[in-house]
Amino acid sequence: MDQYLERLKNGTLKLYALEKEVPAPEAIRIRRAFIEQEAGVVLPKLGSFTMDPSAAVRRNIENMVGAVQVPVGVAGPLKVRGEHAAGEYYVPLATTEGALVASVNRGCGAITRAGGADVRILRNGMTRAPVFSTRDILHARAVKEFVDGNRAALAAAAAETTSHGELTGATVFITGTTVHVRLEFDTKDAMGMNMVTIASERIGNLIEEKTGAHLVALSGNLCTDKKPAAVNAILGRGKTVVAGVHLAGDLVSEVFKTDAGTIAEVNYRKNLLGSARAGSLGFNAQAANIIAALFIATGQDAAHVVEGSGVFTTAEEREGGVYVAVTIPALQLGTVGGGTTLDTQRECLSLLGFAGGGTPPGANARKFAEIAACAVLAGELSLLGALGAGHLARAHRALGRGKGSSRA
Amino acid sequence: MDQYLERLKNGTLKLYALEKEVPAPEAIRIRRAFIEQEAGVVLPKLGSFTMDPSAAVRRNIENMVGAVQVPVGVAGPLKVRGEHAAGEYYVPLATTEGALVASVNRGCGAITRAGGADVRILRNGMTRAPVFSTRDILHARAVKEFVDGNRAALAAAAAETTSHGELTGATVFITGTTVHVRLEFDTKDAMGMNMVTIASERIGNLIEEKTGAHLVALSGNLCTDKKPAAVNAILGRGKTVVAGVHLAGDLVSEVFKTDAGTIAEVNYRKNLLGSARAGSLGFNAQAANIIAALFIATGQDAAHVVEGSGVFTTAEEREGGVYVAVTIPALQLGTVGGGTTLDTQRECLSLLGFAGGGTPPGANARKFAEIAACAVLAGELSLLGALGAGHLARAHRALGRGKGSSRA
Amino acid sequence: MDQYLERLKNGTLKLYALEKEVPAPEAIRIRRAFIEQEAGVVLPKLGSFTMDPSAAVRRNIENMVGAVQVPVGVAGPLKVRGEHAAGEYYVPLATTEGALVASVNRGCGAITRAGGADVRILRNGMTRAPVFSTRDILHARAVKEFVDGNRAALAAAAAETTSHGELTGATVFITGTTVHVRLEFDTKDAMGMNMVTIASERIGNLIEEKTGAHLVALSGNLCTDKKPAAVNAILGRGKTVVAGVHLAGDLVSEVFKTDAGTIAEVNYRKNLLGSARAGSLGFNAQAANIIAALFIATGQDAAHVVEGSGVFTTAEEREGGVYVAVTIPALQLGTVGGGTTLDTQRECLSLLGFAGGGTPPGANARKFAEIAACAVLAGELSLLGALGAGHLARAHRALGRGKGSSRA
Amino acid sequence: MDQYLERLKNGTLKLYALEKEVPAPEAIRIRRAFIEQEAGVVLPKLGSFTMDPSAAVRRNIENMVGAVQVPVGVAGPLKVRGEHAAGEYYVPLATTEGALVASVNRGCGAITRAGGADVRILRNGMTRAPVFSTRDILHARAVKEFVDGNRAALAAAAAETTSHGELTGATVFITGTTVHVRLEFDTKDAMGMNMVTIASERIGNLIEEKTGAHLVALSGNLCTDKKPAAVNAILGRGKTVVAGVHLAGDLVSEVFKTDAGTIAEVNYRKNLLGSARAGSLGFNAQAANIIAALFIATGQDAAHVVEGSGVFTTAEEREGGVYVAVTIPALQLGTVGGGTTLDTQRECLSLLGFAGGGTPPGANARKFAEIAACAVLAGELSLLGALGAGHLARAHRALGRGKGSSRA
Repeated sequence: MDQYLERLKNGTLKLYALEKEVPAPEAIRIRRAFIEQEAGVVLPKLGSFTMDPSAAVRRNIENMVGAVQVPVGVAGPLKVRGEHAAGEYYVPLATTEGALVASVNRGCGAITRAGGADVRILRNGMTRAPVFSTRDILHARAVKEFVDGNRAALAAAAAETTSHGELTGATVFITGTTVHVRLEFDTKDAMGMNMVTIASERIGNLIEEKTGAHLVALSGNLCTDKKPAAVNAILGRGKTVVAGVHLAGDLVSEVFKTDAGTIAEVNYRKNLLGSARAGSLGFNAQAANIIAALFIATGQDAAHVVEGSGVFTTAEEREGGVYVAVTIPALQLGTVGGGTTLDTQRECLSLLGFAGGGTPPGANARKFAEIAACAVLAGELSLLGALGAGHLARAHRALGRGKGSSRA
Repeated sequence: MDQYLERLKNGTLKLYALEKEVPAPEAIRIRRAFIEQEAGVVLPKLGSFTMDPSAAVRRNIENMVGAVQVPVGVAGPLKVRGEHAAGEYYVPLATTEGALVASVNRGCGAITRAGGADVRILRNGMTRAPVFSTRDILHARAVKEFVDGNRAALAAAAAETTSHGELTGATVFITGTTVHVRLEFDTKDAMGMNMVTIASERIGNLIEEKTGAHLVALSGNLCTDKKPAAVNAILGRGKTVVAGVHLAGDLVSEVFKTDAGTIAEVNYRKNLLGSARAGSLGFNAQAANIIAALFIATGQDAAHVVEGSGVFTTAEEREGGVYVAVTIPALQLGTVGGGTTLDTQRECLSLLGFAGGGTPPGANARKFAEIAACAVLAGELSLLGALGAGHLARAHRALGRGKGSSRA
Repeated sequence: MDQYLERLKNGTLKLYALEKEVPAPEAIRIRRAFIEQEAGVVLPKLGSFTMDPSAAVRRNIENMVGAVQVPVGVAGPLKVRGEHAAGEYYVPLATTEGALVASVNRGCGAITRAGGADVRILRNGMTRAPVFSTRDILHARAVKEFVDGNRAALAAAAAETTSHGELTGATVFITGTTVHVRLEFDTKDAMGMNMVTIASERIGNLIEEKTGAHLVALSGNLCTDKKPAAVNAILGRGKTVVAGVHLAGDLVSEVFKTDAGTIAEVNYRKNLLGSARAGSLGFNAQAANIIAALFIATGQDAAHVVEGSGVFTTAEEREGGVYVAVTIPALQLGTVGGGTTLDTQRECLSLLGFAGGGTPPGANARKFAEIAACAVLAGELSLLGALGAGHLARAHRALGRGKGSSRA
Repeated sequence: MDQYLERLKNGTLKLYALEKEVPAPEAIRIRRAFIEQEAGVVLPKLGSFTMDPSAAVRRNIENMVGAVQVPVGVAGPLKVRGEHAAGEYYVPLATTEGALVASVNRGCGAITRAGGADVRILRNGMTRAPVFSTRDILHARAVKEFVDGNRAALAAAAAETTSHGELTGATVFITGTTVHVRLEFDTKDAMGMNMVTIASERIGNLIEEKTGAHLVALSGNLCTDKKPAAVNAILGRGKTVVAGVHLAGDLVSEVFKTDAGTIAEVNYRKNLLGSARAGSLGFNAQAANIIAALFIATGQDAAHVVEGSGVFTTAEEREGGVYVAVTIPALQLGTVGGGTTLDTQRECLSLLGFAGGGTPPGANARKFAEIAACAVLAGELSLLGALGAGHLARAHRALGRGKGSSRA
């Protein structure tokens, strides 16, 4: 090891090049030892993990030094009544924020006692929007005409790069001399950014060649990836899902210690008026919490919680109870690729009944989306209930005394 | 164990109540065994972890069944020239998305070779905005007048609940009969949502008592917590930080295989025009990626990546090179509390030179914010460079063949 | 007259009912006399107008008491190179804000000297989005399926109400139990809100009948009419138009006393970064000024300046000069209907070469849209130039001394 | 006249220079004759006006050729219960859109019968935000420190330019190397853009001189003037006003032929959910209509309808009736300057009881703002009622047959 440390120290070996010289486990050890030295710290727990490092460094991480452990709790059973997912599920949530799993768990209890939540996928399509520069607005319009008039050629170009994905849409936005082409794909069980990016490059090159426009960047932010954006709410990105449940008045008071009218009012003054007044693109209570915890547990791209935060939650008094729904315009997830291949994440997916590709392709990702939407609904119900009953600070006080789990 | 499984099965024992009967490690085993049975799966890797389960279930998680492992790579050294952080750092990033660490690493290399990035904290204050209902607009205005005229009383009420936090602002928003009071606190080294929520409840009760308004919800979405919102960009939330670096033309071409003008153009057409056209609140390339990975590594609240995504990235040609900067209006982080107490996360913080409270209080969180902003800058530089050079899809193709690390 | 005043006074005659008893000119006189009495003022100038009051009270106004006079100036000649409008135009602008016409005039001069501005219409369609309530999310989805599957029936229903308009699109948005159906029509030479509203009612009734959903409101704000909204930028409303012009460096310095680089920088820091930082939906300098003045002069619906304000202005250095473009996603205008039938407004339209319907239908509105976009471009150029040269305050100071017109 | 036409024709006389050679009335005639010739049209009605052309060309318009006449109707009496305006008013509305005055009139009737609307001004301050460029983020922060630390010097600089306006705030926004300073002023009875712009230039020059930053543009779009922007909703611009009224159930059914619950539901599904889903910054039904018509009638800057469109309308069932309120974050108006000096516009102001400056200064503008907000409330009430009763299309159909006034 010392010789490697020496070479890293004197710069003749790059930190990222270790895997070229030694097997991954050894490379990780040396790298960790080096940065421990450099920073004057010890990282024993970080170095203690069970995943296969060779696989990880090939697909998931570079400059690996170890792994963090994020505790996983389950919320459930959660009864889901979808087109793809139907049954009761225990939802794995990885978080370090006490009270979150308990909160979702309470919501799951309410939903399941109410007979389950209805859920439907309204739209499906992963997007990437390359951006082009043109000479002038006439040239820009010519690019639009080319794209509008050659959908089949674009689809064929994409098909050369992938057998899984399929071009399902291409929308052109002109802004002066700048042209964005928002490409949309069915990516089956994969979240799909990888295949979509590669396919978009092929299409981008074709557009460049045929129109003389210049491909400035493969991603032009009209995708919109990992930035909050109205375009995703309006046109959708990934899966657009809606879930809803009616809770009878008795159930509300029993589970949430409040009443239907209060839940509707909290939703009105907080999720609607509060968000409107804030200039927000998310009209919900805590959708991001659930999506973040579920995504980390199941090996999704955690940064996609950004799009996930754009949820619309509604709560309406009805028949003495309350009908609560969540509309998620842009939910990006998959059961293959990315972090889904790591052991612990794969186990979390298996807990939900799917890991890997579905039959037919896409079936597993659809199931997953339906369950995810119902979990978000559970989180919304629970926080609306807690706020309505005045229990939010109580939960936080308990946590402050290290009694987080007593609120489950 | 069997007796517990039996009782869980027949419903006489609640899943979340296990810790009341048996020690945490045992509770977790039983719970995992139960859901394995229920779901018909095995979760051996999830059950293999090194953290102290007793501490975790007290503070971080409920219904714990195990832990996921997220691989951690380091990017660096990253030279930071802040008021609080000064020196070179290895930044721990926990992610399952191949190519991310390599990307940030490349950006760190460019920054460090350029002599380091400047960074400053412009504003600091954690917020919570309770929402009240009133009889009519006259009553609403009376609430505003009370809040505007009794700042000291509000601060005193908050001070009864915490010795760490301090009320530093209270802004009233009236929307018809609805009144939001956006309270702002200095929370020192803690991200602070916990203490802020508790203090806000006390203040909320005072306002209720003195004005007769009804406290509808302790959080009214003008905070705005975990939803994208213009209010955070305009008034700030957590820490508002700006970081910038000038890269000479030679450095740009050497590191990024492109030139200054191209980087500026990519930023212009993608981060500015693309986001504007998308109706976005985030004008950047991949800030959320870096924030998510850094937050998961260091035990932050991962859902705060939502606010973190609202970054403004600028790139301007200057003196043959390019000046690139990131402005982060709402960065919420801490070195105490939350997931920072877990072993692996604490090790990641220690790698940056701080874990736990600083001297004076708040100093560590400030250091952290400065380093985080520079890491975001590194990510932006790198992706702008890759897009400019046409390398984005190439990285994704390599990943598709399981050669992710070759792009470092 | 006295008897009417008496009856108005004692409430036996309603102010709005006067036209039922006496001819319009007389009704207006009596009404004016009555409110003069009530308010204790005299309104001689308001009562002095040349329009045909009988026509006005039938189509344009209720409770008429007179007319305000808004001064009209012309900017031009403005050379337009569109698909529909080609030639030089004098643009009528009705405003009371000194310096505005002069500003646009200067921009027209620059465009015309540069050989004219290119302009193209990218999209055309007037929208109305009725909103429905449903029982639950399953019912909501059934409504979506009905609309998606019965476009022809919807178009037929619309066709029963109008021979001018034509249904060209129907996009469904589900938000929990709420369903918005954004209907889009080609309304030829009319701005079209009238016919679109009537057609939408027929379609709304059909949807109600066939799906059991309840039509809550004929306009559900996803239209979006007269409120700033991202949906209009993304999907378009009315006409989506783009116009651009290249100004050589000499021309910039001669006309604007500044240079190409400065104009690009003003646009960058003001129209892009400033608007981004403001959480704005309009990335331009003064588009609303030009649209307001042109709309008032030509009898358009002045409140549509709201949508018109969502313009994207870009300015890029090129070949020693600067290419400036405006992209207007939602421009609502017409040459028939509304205020276009009033004498003075009709004269302003005739000055542009069209008043009334075009051949084929829609041709006049298209011409108008192209000229309007170029006028907006002229306004942008001029203000960017004035800001770049530091002349804005100078113009305002001159105005303060009553020397507004010296800056033309 | 011929000689002038000849010189205009051959380019030896500029259209805008006519006033330098002949008196204004003559200049206008010649100019009109010239463009009649050029365009091959006649503009007799445009040339027929009663305003004083000499005053108009000095202050309100350039290149004047005549005036358009916009019909004015009155809505009222409208009972206002403000701090500044108290009593019943007839509101002058200039519009060419049939049904609008009738709609507002109906709302006024409901308010007045309910005993009047409460209204309060919550905030007051006109803004202008010059934008500066700096060397790097350290320089940017130095500018912020200068502004934050030298408020008195800034105020003194402003005071040199105006005796009417007063600097009341300065908020700094840093975006990388770009610095916006949002200056806020009390402009008394004037809308104030003129004086604010001049004062901002003086302050901008001071900042340039003291910090070495470069003043790129006097208006940097964080003002935000005439573009929809969240910053105006959050920080206010011009006057922030809130108005509300409770309508008993009987009154709702009598006036609007619907019930309180329906009005609340229309508001919920349209103004809240519809606008949220549209990515809108305006949560109202038709605020822009009322503001546009009132502004044109009273000589305000019509383009300010853009900011005015950002109204939040709320409607809540209460005591068998409904409480409806409008919150207007950014209402820019004045009783002196701009178009308020023109005869017909001045008469419209006088009808409301004020024209010119108030005692103390600012009193008239405050009265005006309170009445305007109540007029907006009337419009909202009326349209919510019409939509609830299913009457919107009926009104449009009547208009289509030229029977607009029958809906009053």
